[in-house]
Amino acid sequence: MNDPEPALVALDWGTSGQRAWLLGADGRILGTRRSGRGLMAVTEGIDPGDPAAREAAYEAALHQACGDWLAGGLPAIACGMVGSAQGWTDTGYRTVPSTLDFTGLVPVPHRDGVLHLVPGLRMPSGELPGDVLRGEETQLAGMSDLLTGRCATVVLPGTHSKWVRVERGEVTAFATAMSGELHGLLTAHGIFARTAAEAVRDDVAFERGLTAGRRARGLSTELFGARPLVLDGELAPASLPDYLSGVLIADEVSHLVPGGETGVVVCGTADLCRRYAAALAHHGVEAAVRTEETAAEGLWRIATAAGLVTEGKS
Amino acid sequence: MNDPEPALVALDWGTSGQRAWLLGADGRILGTRRSGRGLMAVTEGIDPGDPAAREAAYEAALHQACGDWLAGGLPAIACGMVGSAQGWTDTGYRTVPSTLDFTGLVPVPHRDGVLHLVPGLRMPSGELPGDVLRGEETQLAGMSDLLTGRCATVVLPGTHSKWVRVERGEVTAFATAMSGELHGLLTAHGIFARTAAEAVRDDVAFERGLTAGRRARGLSTELFGARPLVLDGELAPASLPDYLSGVLIADEVSHLVPGGETGVVVCGTADLCRRYAAALAHHGVEAAVRTEETAAEGLWRIATAAGLVTEGKS
Repeated sequence: MNDPEPALVALDWGTSGQRAWLLGADGRILGTRRSGRGLMAVTEGIDPGDPAAREAAYEAALHQACGDWLAGGLPAIACGMVGSAQGWTDTGYRTVPSTLDFTGLVPVPHRDGVLHLVPGLRMPSGELPGDVLRGEETQLAGMSDLLTGRCATVVLPGTHSKWVRVERGEVTAFATAMSGELHGLLTAHGIFARTAAEAVRDDVAFERGLTAGRRARGLSTELFGARPLVLDGELAPASLPDYLSGVLIADEVSHLVPGGETGVVVCGTADLCRRYAAALAHHGVEAAVRTEETAAEGLWRIATAAGLVTEGKS
Repeated sequence: MNDPEPALVALDWGTSGQRAWLLGADGRILGTRRSGRGLMAVTEGIDPGDPAAREAAYEAALHQACGDWLAGGLPAIACGMVGSAQGWTDTGYRTVPSTLDFTGLVPVPHRDGVLHLVPGLRMPSGELPGDVLRGEETQLAGMSDLLTGRCATVVLPGTHSKWVRVERGEVTAFATAMSGELHGLLTAHGIFARTAAEAVRDDVAFERGLTAGRRARGLSTELFGARPLVLDGELAPASLPDYLSGVLIADEVSHLVPGGETGVVVCGTADLCRRYAAALAHHGVEAAVRTEETAAEGLWRIATAAGLVTEGKS
């Protein structure tokens, strides 16, 4: 079977990086690219209050990433922070409860056509502070087959992990934990940055961290516990990042794991899915795992629903 | 009444700063100095593995801080990170349980005499990771009148807050929460550093943070909650630091507040004591407050017990 004709350029364009896919007429992935051209790199050195400067910077980054794919006038779609207030243009948010058929794409012209941005999701502030997500709505769309007709909690770990409640094809609520960012701050700065050696993977240290993070002394105390362990020679400095990862993920999961329910799906990089699945297993929850390619699937579905591509054309 | 003769130079010499007192023969404070010459500033640019380089750097810093006080050959004493492995010399730790009459001072010679370093306290690792403190043992000694003959929890907030259990004049256990460091990391780096404006004091934002930090969603989630509040215009960027402070302190206090006991003492800067007392009040605990001058009192008592000074001489 020959490769189908290219039909869509799809991007998951986040804060710290960007993934781009060339998709064929049947939705199949023909090419994948990954770069560090996220919101932070793109907007570095420009005035964030100047929309024209931002547009020029994002257009240049888009063409650097996949100008060759776009040259033929292919339709293009992107989700993630590219649609935020500091992005190419602010697409706003759809308010939950929201179905998984994400509509209301916002077109931005580029030199070879139009890029369609997917809006994010917003939970209004009530008794709890509100919350927002961008990009994860597309991953949810990419697993709609798994989610339609049932209730599930979807965990999307990352710099800011999202815990999304889906009830029969509808997003009803979500919460964000900043464990990934805390891990980055703790290992790059402060006392642990002074202690840490070149990091090595240490599954035993990660498991010890998981155990610590389930205790009742609180996150701030269990994180500090890594220091006496290093001083006592019980934890190698190179294993600090994995220990801290265990503490942070266990604490997050302990607080957010849904009670009395096992329909948990974890979607993210293989490494983060492994870590969250391990933490969930300590609560007796076996998680279904979806990879990051789910975003490509979601972008394809949203583009199809919006009429940007016609499934099966070739 | 005339000032008594100077009798002791006393220093609380920590990681990020240094306080020095000139004490009279009755223990009264004759002079106070505060500088940023903590462990980090002193060891910057020198090889921490070279003891001679470290000694020279600490001696220079001591004489910069209070060479004029020391010139007459006065006895001198110091507590804090100056006695750590990265300090002037490593004084080691006394193991808990430990009485409040801290002995075993470690002498280090300087050009005009000898500086006596107070060793820290250590809780050995058991089921929980062990823990260490340095400097706080001296503050405990400074409030031994308050602590002898009763049971109390002493909270010493700072970059690394210590929660110390004292039972009838003996330190029996303690735990460290790194909420202060987390606050520093969150406001100096990462997503909140991008959002924050020049900080202003905002007691309402602090109280809202206290409320958030007592909820069951977990620290990592409640910290992130500040972001949607700012996006929704419900929290001013300049009030972010006080909101985050509330979340961190409430979470720490919720986990570490002793159950069924009201004998809590808070000792630290006026600002931190105010914040911790407010968080404790939400748990129905009225805290006794001691200021930082408690360290000077502790240094005087330890020096007296060690025979460095004779109380009442003049």
